[in-house]
Amino acid sequence: MAEVRIAILGTGFIADFRIQAYNKIPGVSVVALMGRTRERAEEFARRHGLAAVTSWDELLRGPAFDAVDICLPNGLHREHALTAARHGKHIICAKPLATTAAEAREMLDAAERAGVVHCYGENWYFAPDFREILDLVRRGTVGRPLWMRGREGHFGPHTPWFFDKRLAGGGSLLDMGCHVIALFNELAGGAGAEDVLCHTATLHHDTDCEDNALAIIRYRGGLVGHVEASWTSRGGMQAVVEIWGDEGMITYDRSQLSQPIKVFANRRTDRYFAEKAESDRGWLFPVVEEFWRYGYYDELHHFAECIKTGTAPRATFREGLAVNEIIDAAYASSAAGRWAPVQRA
Amino acid sequence: MAEVRIAILGTGFIADFRIQAYNKIPGVSVVALMGRTRERAEEFARRHGLAAVTSWDELLRGPAFDAVDICLPNGLHREHALTAARHGKHIICAKPLATTAAEAREMLDAAERAGVVHCYGENWYFAPDFREILDLVRRGTVGRPLWMRGREGHFGPHTPWFFDKRLAGGGSLLDMGCHVIALFNELAGGAGAEDVLCHTATLHHDTDCEDNALAIIRYRGGLVGHVEASWTSRGGMQAVVEIWGDEGMITYDRSQLSQPIKVFANRRTDRYFAEKAESDRGWLFPVVEEFWRYGYYDELHHFAECIKTGTAPRATFREGLAVNEIIDAAYASSAAGRWAPVQRA
Amino acid sequence: MAEVRIAILGTGFIADFRIQAYNKIPGVSVVALMGRTRERAEEFARRHGLAAVTSWDELLRGPAFDAVDICLPNGLHREHALTAARHGKHIICAKPLATTAAEAREMLDAAERAGVVHCYGENWYFAPDFREILDLVRRGTVGRPLWMRGREGHFGPHTPWFFDKRLAGGGSLLDMGCHVIALFNELAGGAGAEDVLCHTATLHHDTDCEDNALAIIRYRGGLVGHVEASWTSRGGMQAVVEIWGDEGMITYDRSQLSQPIKVFANRRTDRYFAEKAESDRGWLFPVVEEFWRYGYYDELHHFAECIKTGTAPRATFREGLAVNEIIDAAYASSAAGRWAPVQRA
Amino acid sequence: MAEVRIAILGTGFIADFRIQAYNKIPGVSVVALMGRTRERAEEFARRHGLAAVTSWDELLRGPAFDAVDICLPNGLHREHALTAARHGKHIICAKPLATTAAEAREMLDAAERAGVVHCYGENWYFAPDFREILDLVRRGTVGRPLWMRGREGHFGPHTPWFFDKRLAGGGSLLDMGCHVIALFNELAGGAGAEDVLCHTATLHHDTDCEDNALAIIRYRGGLVGHVEASWTSRGGMQAVVEIWGDEGMITYDRSQLSQPIKVFANRRTDRYFAEKAESDRGWLFPVVEEFWRYGYYDELHHFAECIKTGTAPRATFREGLAVNEIIDAAYASSAAGRWAPVQRA
Repeated sequence: MAEVRIAILGTGFIADFRIQAYNKIPGVSVVALMGRTRERAEEFARRHGLAAVTSWDELLRGPAFDAVDICLPNGLHREHALTAARHGKHIICAKPLATTAAEAREMLDAAERAGVVHCYGENWYFAPDFREILDLVRRGTVGRPLWMRGREGHFGPHTPWFFDKRLAGGGSLLDMGCHVIALFNELAGGAGAEDVLCHTATLHHDTDCEDNALAIIRYRGGLVGHVEASWTSRGGMQAVVEIWGDEGMITYDRSQLSQPIKVFANRRTDRYFAEKAESDRGWLFPVVEEFWRYGYYDELHHFAECIKTGTAPRATFREGLAVNEIIDAAYASSAAGRWAPVQRA
Repeated sequence: MAEVRIAILGTGFIADFRIQAYNKIPGVSVVALMGRTRERAEEFARRHGLAAVTSWDELLRGPAFDAVDICLPNGLHREHALTAARHGKHIICAKPLATTAAEAREMLDAAERAGVVHCYGENWYFAPDFREILDLVRRGTVGRPLWMRGREGHFGPHTPWFFDKRLAGGGSLLDMGCHVIALFNELAGGAGAEDVLCHTATLHHDTDCEDNALAIIRYRGGLVGHVEASWTSRGGMQAVVEIWGDEGMITYDRSQLSQPIKVFANRRTDRYFAEKAESDRGWLFPVVEEFWRYGYYDELHHFAECIKTGTAPRATFREGLAVNEIIDAAYASSAAGRWAPVQRA
Repeated sequence: MAEVRIAILGTGFIADFRIQAYNKIPGVSVVALMGRTRERAEEFARRHGLAAVTSWDELLRGPAFDAVDICLPNGLHREHALTAARHGKHIICAKPLATTAAEAREMLDAAERAGVVHCYGENWYFAPDFREILDLVRRGTVGRPLWMRGREGHFGPHTPWFFDKRLAGGGSLLDMGCHVIALFNELAGGAGAEDVLCHTATLHHDTDCEDNALAIIRYRGGLVGHVEASWTSRGGMQAVVEIWGDEGMITYDRSQLSQPIKVFANRRTDRYFAEKAESDRGWLFPVVEEFWRYGYYDELHHFAECIKTGTAPRATFREGLAVNEIIDAAYASSAAGRWAPVQRA
Repeated sequence: MAEVRIAILGTGFIADFRIQAYNKIPGVSVVALMGRTRERAEEFARRHGLAAVTSWDELLRGPAFDAVDICLPNGLHREHALTAARHGKHIICAKPLATTAAEAREMLDAAERAGVVHCYGENWYFAPDFREILDLVRRGTVGRPLWMRGREGHFGPHTPWFFDKRLAGGGSLLDMGCHVIALFNELAGGAGAEDVLCHTATLHHDTDCEDNALAIIRYRGGLVGHVEASWTSRGGMQAVVEIWGDEGMITYDRSQLSQPIKVFANRRTDRYFAEKAESDRGWLFPVVEEFWRYGYYDELHHFAECIKTGTAPRATFREGLAVNEIIDAAYASSAAGRWAPVQRA
């Protein structure tokens, strides 16, 4: 295959991010854009020099494409993945794979039946820092892992659908906790999650989703991981992972204050510093090449390679499903106020 | 009162720490030492130029004293506090106040009946860093607090009784979580804790106590706090507090890597760097004047002032009781695998 | 001597700081205040519940005192120290001791002739962090020291006299470099400074003093130290010391970002955070108990003890003179554009 | 041009680094390797699956190539660059360009005469962090720059020729200071360096080169930069840049302790953590994807693009010459003990 032709489904923040990435990858081109509303799709498409469509009918009448990249609200993933599979298109789907494990299972089954390449679009798998952490753990540098902690926080998404449970499927746990859980599953090295104890709360935002969650996951063999996911975390994006083993520990922080470049600006600046930055003067912390550091480049590069070579991605819908199973258990635990088993969908 | 005369009960690490502190406080003197075994008591007393006793009978036949400082295993606090109260002695008792709220209630009642000054020996109340954090929150610098996190961790105590539930009463949650809970109670500003969801686990050490705990506490009004307490935390003492409010956040870390002095030693060094330091070469992080920074000086100074002036300490057994009530609920939650209400003893 | 009675000379920032410190030291009282102008002296004295004077005549007619604490502009240190010595008063003089080594020598000789206790008011000698660093070096933790670096910077003093060479005697090097040089002299362990290569520049402020300086000092035996002193250092107080030895290194930073408490405030706050803080929202870094951490308490406590016991302070005018000798050489080097020898005054 | 064919001259640490980079760049291949000694060249070539040569004669008889990448000792750069130009080969030359400005000028003239693409192999120009810092300064985020500081330090090179002035041309200033000076020249935005005040010293290593240097550079218009370059800097690679402007400051640190991943290993580990790491247990700090972060990938990618498109690299021998001119002045200053003018070669 000379070139992998991608259709992007979605016109939000993440779609924009990914078009930038695709444009840097040799042998890949974005050939189509599908939005949910005509106006927004056209504005977005114009910005990227593409034509906009708003339905699969239109999409299929347009230029040929090999794969879709689903960047739509969580609650729409299933429907579009099933359609894509039906048309024999390869699929990468932004995290979380679905709003429930049942949906994720349908998506996985459909993709497998269709024989298309299916990739779970979880950038943490591909971020260089996390690959390094996985390598450290696998080599035994910190001994046998006993307890893991992962936190992602910021002050809430910019896009309204995140706060609408019908479209989002869940709040901060589904949105951000899914990153941490995916990493935990890797670190657990194949041991499955057994049960979850979780508390979710809506402390500040006007939403039917939780804006804070803390979940404790027990893995087979005794390893414990706890996830903190917050939409009320002031001071910019916070991302922290800590792993305690019986012979050492790893601590990782890519929050603002941990960036190697630190800037003090006496006057207001309107320069971009980082995703979810909350201040524009005083101490500011640029995140350099976010899209490389966060793993987007390597993720999409890998997806394109898998399509070219017909191999299974490092992270398929199966990995996405495993994350949804844990999140289902977490929500069940939170509702019941007690431990809930992780059930295979 | 010209001078406050103290009898120390206990001969462990903390007793040693406190004698050093008393020696620097004007108008205070340590006049007696009581240990659990003759040999150890005498060795310890000799080191400090004092006479050793091993029973209250002996103690009361010795030099007159005004107050006892209880530095014994948690499970012996109650018995010695009751005896001290009966003899009209003022009391400061090392944290946690007791192994259960029922014990703590007995101690409080006895002290109140006896009319003695009773101080909860929780150094975090007095540590300058925590006083600053309390002041920041009270002034509204971060808006309304929504969620708090506190962690204390190291790789386990040096003294055997900590691992014996009969003497210790509990594991890392009782031993270290009590610090965090005391601070949370202050930060909650009078709002009581309502219920607790907790998971405890014994992941590494040979003990009938937990070596890891994570507890989520809900306060009246909606504030949430979560406590991490670990005896399997490699890399030296870890103490972290984070407070997220609707208009800001506070993060505090006094773990090794956050010390302002950082030392690289190419060769092994036998110099003392800090309590619970685990390495002796490479990167090392001295904690300067631990005993001041951790609040011991101010705590004992305050206790002595209260005795002189007959006023109630900033932290009495009542505050210690409130901590034990939460820990009781945490252990109940962990046993039941679900939320447990905080019950007033 | 039951109580040490202090007369403060000066009504600026540092005088205020020191009155706060004296008030906490048992056995010391501030009994008099002398200012340069009636109005300011009275305003300042009223704030502290004292009477104000503006001349030595008035001062000597007032309540009896044992010692003066000179907190006046650098260019007035000599005159007041000589007067104090003539009247048999003990003296502590704020850093730098004088504007030149010749002046410092006069002050030292006068104090010695008068037989009074004379203390060089350099708080870095007494700051716990620096005592720890000295201890590390002396114990050989980093091997033989080869090169030292010290930096102090902020965006310039708040008081006008600092920018007037007639009163200040020099700029950032004299004002802030003197701290670093005092520490270097201690670290050099008795080896004298031999020569200095220095560049000074006035890059921003409207002053006949330098607002930036970099000086390289060679000590007997080969140890090198370089000093950076800047009044154009945005982002709050910066204080850094690094020592490289043949078997290790020490790095110390007490600048804003290195504080253990870090605060993000979404809204403007008018709370005090630290000396020379330059921002009031976004990321803010409180310095806890500055006056203890910076060594003021220990310095003044030590001075009072020396007066009571008639012993020589840890740092006398002799240490201040040694600093002035190096600064004289630095200014000579900067003027000549080449190395200048350190000459004994 | 379908593919850029590279001959690597040199078989040291940096040659190895660059082969790894070339292997990841599409459209580039390494086709030949030239070493200084037969044995080492063959061992090195075998490792990379290539044939080894030890002379230009041999090299020219081998497979055709378009460009050379000079990774030889500094003192051999000139000779090989002249030969390459004579044969019409494009050239990238590792930093520093030459041992003196006179040599650098010869190289520049030869390359220009030959009409080949010539690139100054200074990775700092291409490192993402430094591109970000340049962007911040150019946009005025910190106002007008007044003073810059740059430090690079480690405990000395691993390869013997660095310590032999005949081959190396100079010590830590030439080896490491050249990085900082290149960045300063960019930050000065076209204003030339006017004069230099420098002190060099050999404090520890057995070498006729300096193992420590501090140089102050004055740029036209008043901007000052000071460079610290040390081979006696324990604790692993230290790289720090600070820029103070009249409206803000930037501080950058990519030393060990500033890495986002921090590892505590209780036992010795033999895993690779970073270039020049000095410890193998306790606190360890992996540098993730050094070769990307340090700019090597972007540098060599850019060089290949310039060859393909026939455009001048972002950094040519002209930029390398400007650095050598400043270093010449620095050595002259150090020898004379006074300011030395920067002379155009």
